[in-house]
Amino acid sequence: MSPPHLLTLADLSVKQLKSTLTHAAYLKRVSLPLLQPRPHPAFVVQPPKSLSEKTIALLFSKRSTRTRLSAESAAHLLGGHPMFLSSADIQLGVNESLRDSARVIGGLVDGIFARVGDHTEVEMLAKHSPVPVLNALSSLWHPTQILADLLTLLEHLPSPSPLPTAPHASTSPGHSVPPDMLPADAPPNLDFGVLHGLTLAWLGDSTNVLHDMLVTYPRLGAKVRVAVPKSYPCPPEVWERVKQLGCEKGIEWSDDPLHAVKGADIVVTDTWISMGQESEKSARLAAFQGYQVTESLCRAGGAAEDWKFLHCLPRKPDEVDDEVFYGKRSLVWEEAENRKWTIMALFESMFGHWKLTPED
Amino acid sequence: MSPPHLLTLADLSVKQLKSTLTHAAYLKRVSLPLLQPRPHPAFVVQPPKSLSEKTIALLFSKRSTRTRLSAESAAHLLGGHPMFLSSADIQLGVNESLRDSARVIGGLVDGIFARVGDHTEVEMLAKHSPVPVLNALSSLWHPTQILADLLTLLEHLPSPSPLPTAPHASTSPGHSVPPDMLPADAPPNLDFGVLHGLTLAWLGDSTNVLHDMLVTYPRLGAKVRVAVPKSYPCPPEVWERVKQLGCEKGIEWSDDPLHAVKGADIVVTDTWISMGQESEKSARLAAFQGYQVTESLCRAGGAAEDWKFLHCLPRKPDEVDDEVFYGKRSLVWEEAENRKWTIMALFESMFGHWKLTPED
Amino acid sequence: MSPPHLLTLADLSVKQLKSTLTHAAYLKRVSLPLLQPRPHPAFVVQPPKSLSEKTIALLFSKRSTRTRLSAESAAHLLGGHPMFLSSADIQLGVNESLRDSARVIGGLVDGIFARVGDHTEVEMLAKHSPVPVLNALSSLWHPTQILADLLTLLEHLPSPSPLPTAPHASTSPGHSVPPDMLPADAPPNLDFGVLHGLTLAWLGDSTNVLHDMLVTYPRLGAKVRVAVPKSYPCPPEVWERVKQLGCEKGIEWSDDPLHAVKGADIVVTDTWISMGQESEKSARLAAFQGYQVTESLCRAGGAAEDWKFLHCLPRKPDEVDDEVFYGKRSLVWEEAENRKWTIMALFESMFGHWKLTPED
Repeated sequence: MSPPHLLTLADLSVKQLKSTLTHAAYLKRVSLPLLQPRPHPAFVVQPPKSLSEKTIALLFSKRSTRTRLSAESAAHLLGGHPMFLSSADIQLGVNESLRDSARVIGGLVDGIFARVGDHTEVEMLAKHSPVPVLNALSSLWHPTQILADLLTLLEHLPSPSPLPTAPHASTSPGHSVPPDMLPADAPPNLDFGVLHGLTLAWLGDSTNVLHDMLVTYPRLGAKVRVAVPKSYPCPPEVWERVKQLGCEKGIEWSDDPLHAVKGADIVVTDTWISMGQESEKSARLAAFQGYQVTESLCRAGGAAEDWKFLHCLPRKPDEVDDEVFYGKRSLVWEEAENRKWTIMALFESMFGHWKLTPED
Repeated sequence: MSPPHLLTLADLSVKQLKSTLTHAAYLKRVSLPLLQPRPHPAFVVQPPKSLSEKTIALLFSKRSTRTRLSAESAAHLLGGHPMFLSSADIQLGVNESLRDSARVIGGLVDGIFARVGDHTEVEMLAKHSPVPVLNALSSLWHPTQILADLLTLLEHLPSPSPLPTAPHASTSPGHSVPPDMLPADAPPNLDFGVLHGLTLAWLGDSTNVLHDMLVTYPRLGAKVRVAVPKSYPCPPEVWERVKQLGCEKGIEWSDDPLHAVKGADIVVTDTWISMGQESEKSARLAAFQGYQVTESLCRAGGAAEDWKFLHCLPRKPDEVDDEVFYGKRSLVWEEAENRKWTIMALFESMFGHWKLTPED
Repeated sequence: MSPPHLLTLADLSVKQLKSTLTHAAYLKRVSLPLLQPRPHPAFVVQPPKSLSEKTIALLFSKRSTRTRLSAESAAHLLGGHPMFLSSADIQLGVNESLRDSARVIGGLVDGIFARVGDHTEVEMLAKHSPVPVLNALSSLWHPTQILADLLTLLEHLPSPSPLPTAPHASTSPGHSVPPDMLPADAPPNLDFGVLHGLTLAWLGDSTNVLHDMLVTYPRLGAKVRVAVPKSYPCPPEVWERVKQLGCEKGIEWSDDPLHAVKGADIVVTDTWISMGQESEKSARLAAFQGYQVTESLCRAGGAAEDWKFLHCLPRKPDEVDDEVFYGKRSLVWEEAENRKWTIMALFESMFGHWKLTPED
């Protein structure tokens, strides 16, 4: 049995994407009551403890607050021990070869969640580790972010057709099971139809967040309209994966923010200056003139009336103004919290069961 | 239900202070047997596991060994996962606004124990976090230290009147419950009367430790005699809280160490040079000439014959000599260990139940 | 009851060494099934949870990846909380005396696993800590490495005589206990006879790894042939322990790698340039000319035909070439993984039960 690795959502089929999101919604539903102020109701559905006795290495070459917090709290909910290793604790490729580190670390822990610099590093880890490797963030891809975005949209976009209630939730009215306990047993009914025909606009740099959007949304029936300055093109190895999956038909690429937001239901952006790019600051600020997400830009470009806003955080005012960021369109806090539940779903299935998704 | 925050003991009523200390004594009593070398007795009273499934962020802008060790071991005893975040892991206010960080961190964890620099930082965290915030140490206040000091005094000062035994500890002599298990069921009988008429002397800087003494001891019937050099006065926002609580009547403030120790039952000091003040070292050493706690100073000033010594640690010989520090008057090790139990009481009540104290 | 400390394997009797290794083999056998992909078999033998409720301080002045990963995963398997403290978290002897730190840290946690610089530091910790101190690595000694090496040899060297099966493993054929569960109940049958007459060759610096080999292998019936350049002699305090235990009779010391590998069943080396010695790099590379472990060196020197290779890692190609390191003779990955099980055995017995070994 060889360990499953996940480096980008391009590695998952549409069926696997959907079952992972459904699993995340389930884990969220059973876990939230446990995190309320005590005392608990007498009877609670526990999240699966598939990581009990297990230790998960969080191998972080660079800081990433949301990713780390999500991973540690998710691992604990599953009974596991998250072991955080910063670049002060381990420097990949410095004291020993990356190949040796992957073999040794993988031999002492039960899963590796790696936030690396160059994407080739996480590829090397996956190649040589005897336990599953999940990409927490790399120069090219950011799969767990897009899963969190998807869960947020599934929760917050209006469902075109009302869902039937879970079958046994309405049965046995005389039964004494507390009503707030019923949902935990029923599989969540996510309506993936809300993504059909949805238009997402991306304004900003061609970052790892965008890349995982490109290989994912078109396969779920949504369109991605991209505005990226010509000086910061999409890396060819990313576009290769886009084409392999036939996603390019669902993507419109330009360098015009006004054009990109046309008809957009969702507007997404990210920082223009990622970690390690601080020296390029003035050049970047110049290149992204006109890319700030504002009410007036979206009105001028013709976004949908009730467009919503996503951002992976941390946020600088350069790329989005306060009115949008702290306003009613913003789903950024819900999105941040969903990092936890989607990472938990992957930890549960990959590190717990050596499956990429619970249904595999 | 809005989360409770605790930034200074001035936030607690006398009743809350007492119930927190009683709870700490209870947790200590049930936990200590579990930390002995195994095997355990067959039947043990467990500490409450109100943090199981929960993750507590330890947000430490500055190093604080005792506070961190206490917090991590206390969280583990309650079933929770303590997630330590140093300034290398997160820099408050640098990559994103403090407001955003508070909202995001609070959305991913179940409690925040924050050791910040400027006190306004922990105020901002409390304002924007959706989960409880407990001040681990700030420029102005150090509430958990004074709780540990109080528990130590309650344990070690001679009780003026012998306490009745807990009622049901003497019942059912024919019962087969092991006798060493009985106390765990009975609420601890702390005699708060030992604090009545007690005199504490503070010699040193006007630090966060002193500030929480000022808003606490007078309300419990004790007097505080302070010697602080005129060049390092009490911050006005602290004195404001002192006056609001009517504590100034129980405080005598001077810059004379000999005067301060007069009649003192307890002598307390702290380092003269806190983290970040290293450049002021020579000025500070000059200002604090004559402030070193010694047998001869206390004899000359007229301290009580059996005066005891407290220090929050780490200690430098500048402020107290070896004879006192390692001698019989010193309660510093007991005081350090009580950090754990008082922090555990606050974690249990605040993060576990969203109450400031177990009785609320 | 005073806490047991372990600073070098010279502190253990032969009986204690053997019972520790047997305990490690047992813990490995019961733990490995729990770390497989879930679901578990319905009935599993759990490792002992003697660290539940307990917190173990990992006090690491210097980085040590394998040691840390082993310790954290082992502590979690035993139910304990491993609290990692790097030199950024605590600087021994800087802000307070080492004596005070030992007393305070030991008063807040339930065991100390210390990776220090100078060996006198761990001696000071052991002298003043109220809880057990285990040496994770010091300038002079590295006891947990040699335990891992021994377990690896016991597992991988051919047993001269086949072992009888564990008695009750063959009983009750009609019993419904799943067959793969039987071994967990039986004590492991390690054949210590494989070490009798074994020859180990050490090529390299006189490091902490070598030192614990010197005080251990001769007592188990194995010979150690050492090649160390004359410019890097064995520290006198180490040789003193060697002589106290009568181990010098089992050691042949020279500065000739060819001589050292003669008849060697096992060839062992380590990096030539340890942490903190980077400035001596060119001098050291010169001194160790001819010390690289290769097939041709071992053939020329007359090693046993099926010699095996050990290395504590991390590895540089200077001291061993790729052919040996990645080849069939190499037991380095098994050796690295056994760090976990031998450290777990010491945590269980020392921190769990305040015994140096389970049999004490």
